[in-house]
Amino acid sequence: MTDVTLGIDIGGTNTVFGIVTEKGEIVFKESIPTNGMEPAEDLFERIFNKFDESFKKHSSEYNLVGIGVGAPDGNYYKGSIENPPNLNWGYVNVKELVHKYHDIPAALTNDANAAAIGEMQFGAARGMKNFVEITLGTGLGSGIVVDGKVLYGHDGFAGELGHVNAVRDGRRCGCGKKGCLETYASATGIIRTVSEMLATYRESSPLRDIPYSELSAKKIYDAASGGDKIAINAFKYTGRILGEALADTVAVLSPEAIVIFGGLAQAGDLILEPTKKHMELNLLNNYKGKIKLINSGLSEGDAAVLGSSALIWNELKTN
Amino acid sequence: MTDVTLGIDIGGTNTVFGIVTEKGEIVFKESIPTNGMEPAEDLFERIFNKFDESFKKHSSEYNLVGIGVGAPDGNYYKGSIENPPNLNWGYVNVKELVHKYHDIPAALTNDANAAAIGEMQFGAARGMKNFVEITLGTGLGSGIVVDGKVLYGHDGFAGELGHVNAVRDGRRCGCGKKGCLETYASATGIIRTVSEMLATYRESSPLRDIPYSELSAKKIYDAASGGDKIAINAFKYTGRILGEALADTVAVLSPEAIVIFGGLAQAGDLILEPTKKHMELNLLNNYKGKIKLINSGLSEGDAAVLGSSALIWNELKTN
Repeated sequence: MTDVTLGIDIGGTNTVFGIVTEKGEIVFKESIPTNGMEPAEDLFERIFNKFDESFKKHSSEYNLVGIGVGAPDGNYYKGSIENPPNLNWGYVNVKELVHKYHDIPAALTNDANAAAIGEMQFGAARGMKNFVEITLGTGLGSGIVVDGKVLYGHDGFAGELGHVNAVRDGRRCGCGKKGCLETYASATGIIRTVSEMLATYRESSPLRDIPYSELSAKKIYDAASGGDKIAINAFKYTGRILGEALADTVAVLSPEAIVIFGGLAQAGDLILEPTKKHMELNLLNNYKGKIKLINSGLSEGDAAVLGSSALIWNELKTN
Repeated sequence: MTDVTLGIDIGGTNTVFGIVTEKGEIVFKESIPTNGMEPAEDLFERIFNKFDESFKKHSSEYNLVGIGVGAPDGNYYKGSIENPPNLNWGYVNVKELVHKYHDIPAALTNDANAAAIGEMQFGAARGMKNFVEITLGTGLGSGIVVDGKVLYGHDGFAGELGHVNAVRDGRRCGCGKKGCLETYASATGIIRTVSEMLATYRESSPLRDIPYSELSAKKIYDAASGGDKIAINAFKYTGRILGEALADTVAVLSPEAIVIFGGLAQAGDLILEPTKKHMELNLLNNYKGKIKLINSGLSEGDAAVLGSSALIWNELKTN
């Protein structure tokens, strides 16, 4: 019998779950719609009905030892989610819900922290004890690892790098503040940047033919790859803002590396090069040239399940 | 016999050392000139000559169990100091130097981290496990405590909040960068602010009669206490910049409290009120009203010895 854990990642649209060994092998993986307008109880019933059915085929070979859950705004200390965006849930005690189905060790954290633990266990941060995971998706999430443990702070909500200020009195953010880092450095951030640049510059660009509502990081990437100046400059500007913020992060946390994950990170050097350049320009002398800025070692498709599974593997090891 | 530790604080001008019990009682305390142009060996010889002489009188009552050293740029991991500002030392292995005199547990850290540990052991952060100590002196130092331990990061240099960016392309900093927080929020920072405000506004002010080289935080405080608008606005501006930076710090670290220590902090509400106001204005909703912003519980005169002594008390407890 091989020990395995169940990793569950609850997203706004889909919930992915799967069985993972201690080495990071995914035995099986499934996806179901989250149906965020229904109560959380409904989702967990569907998860465990489907899981129990699939796991039956494997139960002679594998032994389920823990369950990890990653979810937006998941609070590690409380094991609960409070008013998550895009889900009509209010307050939900996730750990209790999970224990109704399987009374084994369970843990909850937010998606960026889960990605960080996944990176440490199975990805580009193997062997590292101090690093920062940046997830560049629709928004910007971050998971901070200090001495091999996720930094949760006093109330479990540390690591909100997406909401440090990047530009004083800058763009309006969904959180109610202005100028938050994620309004610049994220998939939606680069769309806003392109929209501004189309207004500022006079160069022709294929992006001028796409309405704002249909712009995407992918389309901007394609334009940049085709040599479009507006698109290339949008990546440069995004990287500058991100690099400046990362230099400040380094001054506070002194990490060994910063690992970049998520949709926008797939633009590769288009985003990494300007980010690296402006991080270096703004680092204190004793950090210059010493901080690794690297791409995630987790594949986009597997990261969610690996991260939430790594969360509980990590608990089982350290407790 | 009561166990005691020796706390040594190396400053640019003076070095203070003293004997401290586990409860934070200072048995005796002495100060000698640092003479930073002489080699470090000379300083430690003078420290231990003087210390051994003074300790003789107490040696029937007290048992020396450890030595803690706080110094600018002190590296906890390496036990060394590298090219400290104001000291002509180059690279010095402080732990080795200390062990030449007393072969008992010793530890080194920088002055802001020592202040943080002192605060946790003997001051306003007693019982706290997650907080940030801000030292507002000539510059701005910070010590970050996570889960009851100082955050050192990968190379021992974490907690350089004085050098996060406060104003993009702002004032030149001694570190070579522009716009660092300590060029605004510190004793020298407020002097620079007054100088700018004297140029910007037309109000009469007693500060117009003092040359830049003779301005001090104390004189600005006195002017503000007397109702001078320029001085009051300089404190407001300093607090705004500091409060904005602290809001970002909260988003990253989620501390229970921020403790303010040092010369400029003695201005009390003149600096604390605007700092609190602008921190709150820039906090994410889930932090609003929850982060304590408090004055240090260590007296200015004793803090250096208490901090460096607390450093080694903390080591002895946790190891």
